[in-house]
Amino acid sequence: MSTTLTTANPPARSLTLRVRDTLDRLDRDVDAWFAAADPAGLPYLVPLSFLWDGTALLISTARTNPTARFLEATGKVRVALGPTRDVVLIDAEVREVIPAAELPAEVGDAFAAKTGFDPREQRGAYPYFRVVPLQVQAWREVNELAGRDLMIDGRWLSDPEACDPPALTPGPA
Amino acid sequence: MSTTLTTANPPARSLTLRVRDTLDRLDRDVDAWFAAADPAGLPYLVPLSFLWDGTALLISTARTNPTARFLEATGKVRVALGPTRDVVLIDAEVREVIPAAELPAEVGDAFAAKTGFDPREQRGAYPYFRVVPLQVQAWREVNELAGRDLMIDGRWLSDPEACDPPALTPGPA
Repeated sequence: MSTTLTTANPPARSLTLRVRDTLDRLDRDVDAWFAAADPAGLPYLVPLSFLWDGTALLISTARTNPTARFLEATGKVRVALGPTRDVVLIDAEVREVIPAAELPAEVGDAFAAKTGFDPREQRGAYPYFRVVPLQVQAWREVNELAGRDLMIDGRWLSDPEACDPPALTPGPA
Repeated sequence: MSTTLTTANPPARSLTLRVRDTLDRLDRDVDAWFAAADPAGLPYLVPLSFLWDGTALLISTARTNPTARFLEATGKVRVALGPTRDVVLIDAEVREVIPAAELPAEVGDAFAAKTGFDPREQRGAYPYFRVVPLQVQAWREVNELAGRDLMIDGRWLSDPEACDPPALTPGPA
């Protein structure tokens, strides 16, 4: 995986900073690359717009498109955000397929406001897919390959060397 | 596939211009996204550097990495170049897997010069993969979805409205 990488780089970011940068990207980026595959190993890859709700990426694509068909068949997706020298790579599972008519209106409105695209207005079926990350990695260049794991088995890692949040002191009742 | 797209755009490029832009990108871009999958439908996706020789993309990755294992198992890969609003999408086949020691020296040197990465110097096996496009599409925004096919079944399309090259007139012998 290191073949895009060169050797003269700024210092590697801490885990804490990489998690913050990754959450920023999930909040602000409009598009990401979504890779899915059919059960025979044929890969598919397209850019899709998404909405991050703190737990999942919400996407939508025509039910007849390969991405929708493969996600319905396998439930597995790999997502890439950012340019090739500042990547966030996410292995994720589809946890829900939501028909457009059944999505809460405020979620549909938030999706349309962020992405500029409203699947509810399309002809034909454009279901929404709730995509939940299980593994997240982020790196820029070769010096960031060590420490690239940010989430394992659905849990964000925390930096043992980072300051803990201040302990709560019991106050007056 | 249209969910990254908005509606206020510059005019759609002609086929001829899209092919030229795509060939420029293949020549000049250093990295692309490579999606592969295992035969059970688990997708994989990483950025890799490549060298284009006019017919194929040459890539290299550790033989133990998922990309190498999946390419050896299925021979199928989908490649994305460019940002999400100026994409080139390529369905391709692996036509050759070349051990580093068997690659012609000048090709290995050209790969290292372009990518800044020399697989021949790595510890462990870093084979090269010769990836030949079969289908190529390119679009920027929604108004370029029509006419996005640039190559079908391994043949670049040509624009029926573009000027043909001047016919050769037989000259003096």
